[in-house]
Amino acid sequence: MAENETISKFLDGLASSAPTPGGGGAAAISGAMGAALVSMVCNLTIGKKKYVEVEAELKEVLAKSEALRATLTGMIADDVEAFDAVMAAYGLPKNTDAEKAARSETIQAALKTATDVPLACCRVCREVIDLAAITADKGNLNVISDAGVAVLSAYAGLRSAALNVYVNAKGLDDRGFADERLKELEGLLAEAGALNEKVYEVVRAKVN
Amino acid sequence: MAENETISKFLDGLASSAPTPGGGGAAAISGAMGAALVSMVCNLTIGKKKYVEVEAELKEVLAKSEALRATLTGMIADDVEAFDAVMAAYGLPKNTDAEKAARSETIQAALKTATDVPLACCRVCREVIDLAAITADKGNLNVISDAGVAVLSAYAGLRSAALNVYVNAKGLDDRGFADERLKELEGLLAEAGALNEKVYEVVRAKVN
Repeated sequence: MAENETISKFLDGLASSAPTPGGGGAAAISGAMGAALVSMVCNLTIGKKKYVEVEAELKEVLAKSEALRATLTGMIADDVEAFDAVMAAYGLPKNTDAEKAARSETIQAALKTATDVPLACCRVCREVIDLAAITADKGNLNVISDAGVAVLSAYAGLRSAALNVYVNAKGLDDRGFADERLKELEGLLAEAGALNEKVYEVVRAKVN
Repeated sequence: MAENETISKFLDGLASSAPTPGGGGAAAISGAMGAALVSMVCNLTIGKKKYVEVEAELKEVLAKSEALRATLTGMIADDVEAFDAVMAAYGLPKNTDAEKAARSETIQAALKTATDVPLACCRVCREVIDLAAITADKGNLNVISDAGVAVLSAYAGLRSAALNVYVNAKGLDDRGFADERLKELEGLLAEAGALNEKVYEVVRAKVN
């Protein structure tokens, strides 16, 4: 599994001419770092006398951020799988009309998955941003910059995954399917963009 | 070294209540992913007939992005070291006036390093953004989304490291030293913010 590679080896693979891992894997890691930093702020707030009033809420945030981190970590491999399936479909034979039709159908199915996989990453990054906003508001002031890095990482993950949604949705014949995904995506991006700047300013004010 | 940890173990450490790794390490990884994706786009453009006119330029970009990637990868450990030095300084004895003076001096020196380390990360991320802009303009269209993820990752790395500059500069008694760094940082952030949006729109137009 991709997450069991060293950071160094993952970066080597990212930089290489091998088609995977690529931007989709980087997006999932950005999101996972965001979720991990939400967890860190929670872990360094829970149990401190000064923050006893927010303890119950941050315990809930922590449970959610750890679940989202696991999901995002798994998405590093999902992205590779979805991309490889598209490449394999394009590699199918196209000598006869029957082969051409079967190839085209397989490509379209693979592109639908390759649209839905990064869209799922976008949705999860969006949830991480909400949790980062809570930790930026209520977390231990000594580690509040980490709440800021959490939101920046999750937002970069969302926008990065969005580019992969666009790329794959572009190739879809089923425009109803594509337009539905693109509409949801625009909503996620708009909400997240506004919230990212808001949380960054909250954190910046606290660290300045 | 931090880069020889698995992604999974790094994320566990990030999420834990251990003070390092933290947002500074995440910032360095974001920057390194940005540099790696610039390299990927170069590697998948160089040697293709269709892109022969930009080959010489992208070979230069690749040499630079690989050097920046190595620098940023090393910064994962630099951040831990700088943070640990600050913590160690705060832990020094303060029973006598001489001890208090020595402790204060050590803290200030450690905070200067802990300001300069993330600032160096900001500078390198800024350079990655310039390279990502070139690859977004001239790179292989089939992997142009990766140039977009490169710029988003590098920009998130820059803003994330900036938060650590603020945190540590805040504790400095030498305001001349601090203000010089903060002024440079504002310049880096302003340039990078404008360029990030410009490159993202270039890439989005190409993938839509």
